[in-house]
Amino acid sequence: MSTQHVQRMSRLMAKTLREDPADAETLSHRLLVRAGYVRRSSAGVWTWLPLGKRVLDNVSRIVREEMDAIGAQEVLLPALLPKEPYEVSGRWSEYGDLLFRLKDRKGADYLLGPTHEEIFTLVVKDQCTSYKDLPVMLYQIQTKYRDEARPRSGVLRGREFQMKDSYSFDVSDEGLAESYRLHREAYVRIFERLGLDHRIVSAVSGAMGGSASEEFLAPAAAGEDTFVDCPSCDYAANTEAVTFALTPVSAEHPAIEEVDTPDTPTIETLAAHLGVPASATLKNLLVKVDGEITAVGVPGDREVDLGKLGEHLAPAVVELVTAEDFAGRPDLVRGYVGPQGLDKVPYLADPRVAPGTAWVTGANKADTHARNVVCGRDFEVDRYLDVVVVEPGDPCPSCGAGLRLDRAIEIGHIFQLGRKYADAFGLDVLGNEGKPVRVTMGSYGIGVSRAVAALAEQTADDRGLCWPAAVAPADVHVVAAGKAVPLALAEEAAAALAAAGHRVLLDDRPGLSPGVKLTDAELIGVPRILVAGRRSGDRVVELQDRAAGTREELPLDEALARLNAPAGQA
Amino acid sequence: MSTQHVQRMSRLMAKTLREDPADAETLSHRLLVRAGYVRRSSAGVWTWLPLGKRVLDNVSRIVREEMDAIGAQEVLLPALLPKEPYEVSGRWSEYGDLLFRLKDRKGADYLLGPTHEEIFTLVVKDQCTSYKDLPVMLYQIQTKYRDEARPRSGVLRGREFQMKDSYSFDVSDEGLAESYRLHREAYVRIFERLGLDHRIVSAVSGAMGGSASEEFLAPAAAGEDTFVDCPSCDYAANTEAVTFALTPVSAEHPAIEEVDTPDTPTIETLAAHLGVPASATLKNLLVKVDGEITAVGVPGDREVDLGKLGEHLAPAVVELVTAEDFAGRPDLVRGYVGPQGLDKVPYLADPRVAPGTAWVTGANKADTHARNVVCGRDFEVDRYLDVVVVEPGDPCPSCGAGLRLDRAIEIGHIFQLGRKYADAFGLDVLGNEGKPVRVTMGSYGIGVSRAVAALAEQTADDRGLCWPAAVAPADVHVVAAGKAVPLALAEEAAAALAAAGHRVLLDDRPGLSPGVKLTDAELIGVPRILVAGRRSGDRVVELQDRAAGTREELPLDEALARLNAPAGQA
Repeated sequence: MSTQHVQRMSRLMAKTLREDPADAETLSHRLLVRAGYVRRSSAGVWTWLPLGKRVLDNVSRIVREEMDAIGAQEVLLPALLPKEPYEVSGRWSEYGDLLFRLKDRKGADYLLGPTHEEIFTLVVKDQCTSYKDLPVMLYQIQTKYRDEARPRSGVLRGREFQMKDSYSFDVSDEGLAESYRLHREAYVRIFERLGLDHRIVSAVSGAMGGSASEEFLAPAAAGEDTFVDCPSCDYAANTEAVTFALTPVSAEHPAIEEVDTPDTPTIETLAAHLGVPASATLKNLLVKVDGEITAVGVPGDREVDLGKLGEHLAPAVVELVTAEDFAGRPDLVRGYVGPQGLDKVPYLADPRVAPGTAWVTGANKADTHARNVVCGRDFEVDRYLDVVVVEPGDPCPSCGAGLRLDRAIEIGHIFQLGRKYADAFGLDVLGNEGKPVRVTMGSYGIGVSRAVAALAEQTADDRGLCWPAAVAPADVHVVAAGKAVPLALAEEAAAALAAAGHRVLLDDRPGLSPGVKLTDAELIGVPRILVAGRRSGDRVVELQDRAAGTREELPLDEALARLNAPAGQA
Repeated sequence: MSTQHVQRMSRLMAKTLREDPADAETLSHRLLVRAGYVRRSSAGVWTWLPLGKRVLDNVSRIVREEMDAIGAQEVLLPALLPKEPYEVSGRWSEYGDLLFRLKDRKGADYLLGPTHEEIFTLVVKDQCTSYKDLPVMLYQIQTKYRDEARPRSGVLRGREFQMKDSYSFDVSDEGLAESYRLHREAYVRIFERLGLDHRIVSAVSGAMGGSASEEFLAPAAAGEDTFVDCPSCDYAANTEAVTFALTPVSAEHPAIEEVDTPDTPTIETLAAHLGVPASATLKNLLVKVDGEITAVGVPGDREVDLGKLGEHLAPAVVELVTAEDFAGRPDLVRGYVGPQGLDKVPYLADPRVAPGTAWVTGANKADTHARNVVCGRDFEVDRYLDVVVVEPGDPCPSCGAGLRLDRAIEIGHIFQLGRKYADAFGLDVLGNEGKPVRVTMGSYGIGVSRAVAALAEQTADDRGLCWPAAVAPADVHVVAAGKAVPLALAEEAAAALAAAGHRVLLDDRPGLSPGVKLTDAELIGVPRILVAGRRSGDRVVELQDRAAGTREELPLDEALARLNAPAGQA
């Protein structure tokens, strides 16, 4: 029984490497390979070696416990899925190259599941007939496939990866909101138990309602997502979801004055020519919204985020205007558009273009601009939209302090899907008034293998990996720093710890110097390291705390007592 | 904490069906679908609903514990595998249509792993450099893919399925034999713990050595394998591995006598014409072995198993002769071949054609047979081979009793691979004399999802599934057979059982009759059923043992005490 939890490094499939792998871009990629946790099989496809598999299992176990605790039921759906349901939803083609597609021996089309909304909808359609059968929440921890264009960063962004995906089914919007809340709280508990520093950010701006979709982000330099973070309050948001207040100002402004501005093709040259800051100029971007020419006004020092604009106006299609669009429109003078002359063109603007503010802008004449063009006096804004690219120092919408832009790894996503898939598959149940009720759904994901990488990113230091106890591949790393007496003492310590219920990694490798073993122990990152070295004859060992970097010499019995003490007292 | 282990059937995704699914051929297929354990996703691809997932997890846990106990290390390899290693081994083409093949967005070839010998060989080649790193045993419990021509029998033979595959790596044949022994013993413990009746049979006959490959078979009517079983002793074997003793007889026989036998195209007509049993005639099948015409002699009442013949003679290629092969061979009179005239043709024979036995056989003349053709007097056998199809009643090679032929499900296979893959990939380690040593391997598999089906086949009765406690989806099934008082008592019982550590399934479904609920409980097959019914007001419940079919009324407290008693005392 006791020896079952001692893993000897002399046999462990975890060859440590001194050098970083050539293709590793991120800390977690470098360290997980060097410490022998994972090995690359093909681009974006990884083998989990024993240490990695244990961390993956620890993460999965915590996810599973918290999903069970909110009453979600675990199932296992196939990864090999038939084409038809994904044709019904439209995703067979929408996914494009991201989908792995294949045919079976009879020529039938299949895909490798990237996410399973369609199939879960069909499962519930088969299983549930009455409102009494709902709500239900189902989940699985399963291998997913996405043929990423640039698989990279090790297991952070793979083409085959482990994911927990869950789905809720409710008969009412209030029910969906409750299922969403349960998931949100479970996710917070999961990431807290994992020891993952995280922020919850609204994933999209207004259109879908503030709480309809939130992302869980783990701040990390290696992250592919950028998010906005307030250093003074707890505000955090996806950069596309940041909103700014509209604050009208009241001030007296002189009348409009036209000025000659030849050779000022850019905002910078215009501002220099007139001796004003770029932020005093008003830039008017022309786009077509479902074919109709529309102007978008933003301060001259800001960029329009076309993605944000498209999301605000969806499902309308937004395109940039072309030279042809100016034909037959003498009111639109290219490069010199100003809102004060645009009668027939809808005018959208950033909240910074508030009523009462005055601007330098185009005079709707070649080589000419206008000063003192005042919003509300000289032009009207038809609709205010948050469309500028957020920049560091922009005021926090919550407290006004200057915002930070930080990098993060998306580790979770919760989403109120609504009736999209229920509509596609006709998922109704009999309501309590005897009539069919369309079901409303939520979908919720945690990247399990990605969470391992995110944890490595957040906790590693310059000596190697440094796992929180909850996910570490072992509880104690016992190092035999020497042959004979030290080895015997290390064996004794390992056996005693295993007997007390600890998972022990025992470095019993022959022929390696204590220095190499201790370097490896730091690289592997088990939270507590017990070293049997020179003073083994006196039964004195060294106890190291990997994260704190502290080390202390003490008698073996005392070290064992310390390690056996309940967590928090150690 | 306690309610965490109560699964309410009012919410459980396990819709029971009264009717068998139309396509179900086998008991396990019918019952696992009807009881709501699994649902078909596409041909041979299954969704595991919550009850099924729990059984699958219970089987996996037992497999994992026993693999860990022999020191095997758990890893997780990808299912999406690059083509190249399978080209090196030759299996990219050898697998034929059984392999799911696909391309990624760049056009690179991949396959979905049917089994992972190639990739494990590469992992060990990357990780191990010295004989000191060996032996190692690695395993994974993983989703496998095989594009079966006829996926059927539910999860018994799927195209996507769960398998435990493990691999051993040793520097010597003795080491391999030890790794094989460890696996064999672990498999016996696994199947015993699962409660699976099983036989270990030699998988192939002599050529590879008796212990080089063994199959674990679970006897079941739905099995696709036929095996030979002795009712008197513990002998069991794959039908292709049965061997019979060669027993020379000494007897006086008259001289050869030719007889006219016109119009006797078959053994039956010949035997009838001469008034002898078919077993007294000698049938001589002509084949080509690597192109050379060869005769195979077997008693006239037996069939030659061409598969067995091919295995005995491998790697030589065995083909049937064609009409063209008789051209220019006046010594070979088609339909009238006898071994007494075959000078230039090698003669292979079944051990029943023993020295001293006399036969009716062809006279090497048209329309003529010969009597009293004696083995050892009139012809010689060049080589004895076991090539006849085994039939019920054949003598047991061990005790001589009449053998039975039984159907079984192959649930495990252990195999001494030797150096095939190590040769293909150049897997050497530095030996203890400083020279490279080629590694020798074993591979070992357990069909985890198939074991679930095999268990269902072996344990189900005419009322439904009937799980052994070790794998059941719950420990106790509590049925509220009525509203109000019975429901309240059932809730109380479920909470008390959960608090005592039991996994409880609680049938709290409203609007169903006690009869429907009890029928469902028997269909679902949890070992112990506690029914709160008419006598709930007196706190009297009924306790049923699902397997024994016994039922007993007793006070709730006594029922709880009985259920809480350690196993064996219940």
